[in-house]
Parts: sequence; structure tokens; C-alpha cells
Amino acid sequence: MQIDDPAVIAEARAVFDRYEDALMNNRTEILDSIFWADPRTVRFGIGEILYGHDAIRAFRASVKAYAQRVQRKVHIVAFGRDFAATHLEYERVGTGLIGRETKIMARLPEGWRVVSAHVSLLAPDPGMQPR
Amino acid sequence: MQIDDPAVIAEARAVFDRYEDALMNNRTEILDSIFWADPRTVRFGIGEILYGHDAIRAFRASVKAYAQRVQRKVHIVAFGRDFAATHLEYERVGTGLIGRETKIMARLPEGWRVVSAHVSLLAPDPGMQPR
Repeated sequence: MQIDDPAVIAEARAVFDRYEDALMNNRTEILDSIFWADPRTVRFGIGEILYGHDAIRAFRASVKAYAQRVQRKVHIVAFGRDFAATHLEYERVGTGLIGRETKIMARLPEGWRVVSAHVSLLAPDPGMQPR
Repeated sequence: MQIDDPAVIAEARAVFDRYEDALMNNRTEILDSIFWADPRTVRFGIGEILYGHDAIRAFRASVKAYAQRVQRKVHIVAFGRDFAATHLEYERVGTGLIGRETKIMARLPEGWRVVSAHVSLLAPDPGMQPR
């Protein structure tokens, strides 16, 4: 299994960038199209636990606007031709809260799709630790 | 690409169970061995942002005990022979806080390894939303 094939990294990065742009502009139809249209898709959000594309779509439809964020670091690892993990470390505009987003991408017959996403804010309260 | 091959699901589940047992008993050497020994490995913890196996190992060495947790739901999806995403929804003993853990596992030459993990508590504060 080749790790970090530059072509695969570039493909995952293109999906990543398209997603970020759609999120910042609340383009629900693009966000929906990037996630795998399957009951097994997962989105663990900051305040949501969502299983299945239907639940994720219903959530998207409910969002009036996403908090704006500035990217601090993007780290992508590609495994073979058909799999990538993308990691984003970001800062929320205004509050300075630090967030992290992991996306698992797979190349499926229909194209690259996010099959799982996990977003969270770094716990500001040491009392929430450990872990 | 076959999705959810039962043999692959079973292999990922075995790693998952071994990890949970090691976490609850703070078996640092087992936790370290399950994570990919590579600078590209990521662990986004509740209060940590860790890049690379060295940083993750240093963190493990610093933990006196992990908060005990009870599993509420485990959801694993396998892609092909060599890739799986495991999802855990858990409740912390004592506080009732709800947590989520996503692990990305790859079958590498050295065996199955966690190449990325993301743990977070569900935000109890609606003011942290949106997302």
C-alpha cells in the first residue's frame, strides 16, 4: 500500500477545499453531495451525534449559518489509491476557540466521498480531563 | 471495493476491543503499540492536539488514569481489505458526560494500526454552537 501518493493527496485536498468553501457559505446541497449517501455515514459534530446521510442532511437543513473559522493547520495522509484522512486545526473568528476536524474520505464508484467526520472544540476546561 | 467484509470488520473490532481494555487499565505499552509508529499519526484528544507517534507516546506516559467509560454504541465500517473506521459513543462513569471516539485503522505491513484518532465530549453548552 503506497502512503501519500501525491495524486491522491491532491484529490483529497480538492474535496477538502470544496467542503470548507461550502461550509463557510452554507451551501447545503454541496455539503450533502460530499458526504456518502449511505445509512452508515457518521458525523460527530460539536453538539451532534448523527448516523446516516438522512440525519446529516436534516441537520444541514437546520443550520442558519456556520461559525466562521480560520485554518491553522491542514494535515492529510493518503493510504493507497482510495483512502485518505484529512485533519484540520482551526480557530473560530471572534472567540478564538480552537477546533479540530477529522474527515475520512473514500474513493467510491460515485467518486470521493466523506464517509465519516468528527468535529470538536478543544476543551478549554482542564476539569473535563482526562480524556 | 467491498464494504463491510465481515472478516475485516472482525479484525477491526478485535483491535478496537484491545484498545478499550488497554485504555481502561492504562496499559501504556499496548496503547503505544496499537498506534501507527510514524510522524504522520494524529491524535485529537479532548484536551490535546498531537501530531506524530512521539508526541502521542509522551502524552500516554503523562496520564495517571483515564476516565472510566461505558460504551453506548459501537459502529464500524470497513472499506476493502485494509481500511476501517471505528466509532464509539460512550458515557463517562460518574459525570454522565457523553463522549465520542473515531479511530481510523489501516492494515499496514506491520499489522493493523490506528493511524488517526479523534476523541471529544459532546458540547453540553448550546452557546458553543453552531458547530
